[in-house]
Amino acid sequence: MKFIDGGVCAAQGFRAGGIHVGVKTRAAWKKDVALIVSDVECAAAAVFTKNVVKAAPIHVDRRHLADGRARAVIANSGNANACAPNGEENAERMCAAAAAAIGCAPEDVLVSSTGVIGQTLNVQVIENGIPELCRTLVHSAEGSDAAAHAIMTTDTVKKEAAVETSIGGKIVRIGGIAKGSGMIHPNMGTMLCFLTTDCDISSEMIREALLEVTRVSFNRISVDGDTSTNDTCLVLANGLAGNPSITSQGADYDAFLEALRALCVEMARRIAADGEGAKHMITCTVEGATDEAQAERIAKSVISSTLTKAAIFGADANWGRVLCAMGYSGEAFDPDKVDVSFISAAGSVAVCAQGRGLDFDEEAAKRILTEHDVTIAVAMGEGNGACTCWGCDITYDYIKINGDYRT
Amino acid sequence: MKFIDGGVCAAQGFRAGGIHVGVKTRAAWKKDVALIVSDVECAAAAVFTKNVVKAAPIHVDRRHLADGRARAVIANSGNANACAPNGEENAERMCAAAAAAIGCAPEDVLVSSTGVIGQTLNVQVIENGIPELCRTLVHSAEGSDAAAHAIMTTDTVKKEAAVETSIGGKIVRIGGIAKGSGMIHPNMGTMLCFLTTDCDISSEMIREALLEVTRVSFNRISVDGDTSTNDTCLVLANGLAGNPSITSQGADYDAFLEALRALCVEMARRIAADGEGAKHMITCTVEGATDEAQAERIAKSVISSTLTKAAIFGADANWGRVLCAMGYSGEAFDPDKVDVSFISAAGSVAVCAQGRGLDFDEEAAKRILTEHDVTIAVAMGEGNGACTCWGCDITYDYIKINGDYRT
Repeated sequence: MKFIDGGVCAAQGFRAGGIHVGVKTRAAWKKDVALIVSDVECAAAAVFTKNVVKAAPIHVDRRHLADGRARAVIANSGNANACAPNGEENAERMCAAAAAAIGCAPEDVLVSSTGVIGQTLNVQVIENGIPELCRTLVHSAEGSDAAAHAIMTTDTVKKEAAVETSIGGKIVRIGGIAKGSGMIHPNMGTMLCFLTTDCDISSEMIREALLEVTRVSFNRISVDGDTSTNDTCLVLANGLAGNPSITSQGADYDAFLEALRALCVEMARRIAADGEGAKHMITCTVEGATDEAQAERIAKSVISSTLTKAAIFGADANWGRVLCAMGYSGEAFDPDKVDVSFISAAGSVAVCAQGRGLDFDEEAAKRILTEHDVTIAVAMGEGNGACTCWGCDITYDYIKINGDYRT
Repeated sequence: MKFIDGGVCAAQGFRAGGIHVGVKTRAAWKKDVALIVSDVECAAAAVFTKNVVKAAPIHVDRRHLADGRARAVIANSGNANACAPNGEENAERMCAAAAAAIGCAPEDVLVSSTGVIGQTLNVQVIENGIPELCRTLVHSAEGSDAAAHAIMTTDTVKKEAAVETSIGGKIVRIGGIAKGSGMIHPNMGTMLCFLTTDCDISSEMIREALLEVTRVSFNRISVDGDTSTNDTCLVLANGLAGNPSITSQGADYDAFLEALRALCVEMARRIAADGEGAKHMITCTVEGATDEAQAERIAKSVISSTLTKAAIFGADANWGRVLCAMGYSGEAFDPDKVDVSFISAAGSVAVCAQGRGLDFDEEAAKRILTEHDVTIAVAMGEGNGACTCWGCDITYDYIKINGDYRT
């Protein structure tokens, strides 16, 4: 298994593109509609936000995925189509317009939106733009790049990755694009991640794989604790790799799962690193927990703690906030067995042992925490449960971005 | 029932004081130890943080409250005495020193600490300072003022209030001081609130009253979602008002409860309003929920949402974030029945009806949200459940304060 270029076009038989059609009214240079199309029909699966307030495209996608099949994904940025008038109707219109241009049934098109909540989607400009968008579709890194840019909102970098592995003697590729930045605290899926693969795999197995993988990737990141109304992670598998079809558990499924997991963890890390306004990426590793579930809840509590995030922003080795966040995670544990270290490219410093503060070199700690990628390593001394979660610091820029997001 | 002056010294038979002894090493002008003493023994009760990581004073207080009786409270700021070496020993030493000076048993003294986690408490400077601290004790507004200042950390204003009511033909007074500011997301009690009353009430009934009242006051505020290791709300009732002793439910208990509730809600509001770096106080009222518990969980989710807090900071009427935060509260409800308005001294504006955005005057909304006290009014259209929660916005100053809290 290795990482390769090509993003969502890395797998055989996928074309992608993205253009500006006018959903983003004040930034004509910013792409705002993306389209991903498979040459042939795909097994498809998706996971969505658990937020009770769900955007219209999610309701539409659920219906379109009832048969576990799809051919294309259309997505816009600049408007979330959530709590907006005529939401489902407009989402269906996006699917219908894309379907007409591609030559498939509207039910074989999936749809996503991201942007401001509560404003009517200008679906007309999307419909008008689809012919041009279809002309830009290409099976190349450029196509993936354009689509990746078209789903960005406050993201500062596009998120794109792909992996290659061997299954049943055939090369299988999986690629993806994603967007993140704010309102990121996914609960089953994340704010738009589109994955494509040429693996031959059944609808049932691709769905099982996606559920397993989102659990250990996107569901382990947080930017601000706000679970979006639009979180969506979907995958299209068109089977063009020619591998023996995966229809049950086994070595081939495991190989696919490993590759999908590596890809999704990488995409999740990139979303966390590019959290709105973030200056640091924070990784929290927890080991020695009673089990993985405990380790996960504790690691997630640490990366979600506003005070811990502010301390990392200030490169302040204020480990008491780590203990505090562990303590309100909802998990029972013995604080007197907890060790904490801070680790980065500049070195590592142990700050707490057996629940008590250690004398440590503040200058060295400052140097370690000034690096972009900072790891908070927690050892709990209880069992073999371990988990890693990813987040980012909270900065002046986060507040600036979100104090005036709509205007 | 009416509000009166005098804070923690409003009730008969209570003296208070506060001085600088040197726990705060870099700010010799800042008081850092407070003492509150009743002339006679009191019925006493307390609620503490549910954080698994509990500060040493909480363990000590639990033992000292086993008999439901106490005479005094000693508290320091500048050091939380949490995850610190010799924590319980040092907390006991604080009690013993105060007890020796007052002339009571160490078990009749309660202790609290607030400040940095993980550093050894310099208990020696507290012991050395207690004789002087005892000389400052007075039964007056000045005594309460000094104690209120001595428990402040990043608070910008002291929190102090008192109420007076009539019970069984006697004037009964209840007063309190509190500190808040950061790490405020109380779960059973809040970061230090000390209440005194001259009401004659049994240990059992004062405990019941305190539990009921903290549920609807301190447990309904949030500054940053971080539940502290030190949250403590305690009450001393010395009986000097001479009312018929309250030993069971009834009209007298109800009168006391009403007064205690009014006092605690006021104290809680002041803590929320003075959240670290806050420029706005946010009140969220939810009505029309299926029941009070649902209303509370939804209101609390709204005031805890970082994105909603950032929008209020920017006076941005981004109501989609309110819907989003309601949606991830964990409560099931129909988004299509939800109405949202923003209200302040400058007026009110309806922004969402039946889950859909309304056309509204952005200029007017800006004016409304620019006021210091902003209310987010949510109507759910389901039942009669209602609840009010209080919080504050998130600002550049919050991050500045917490990026470099220890140094």
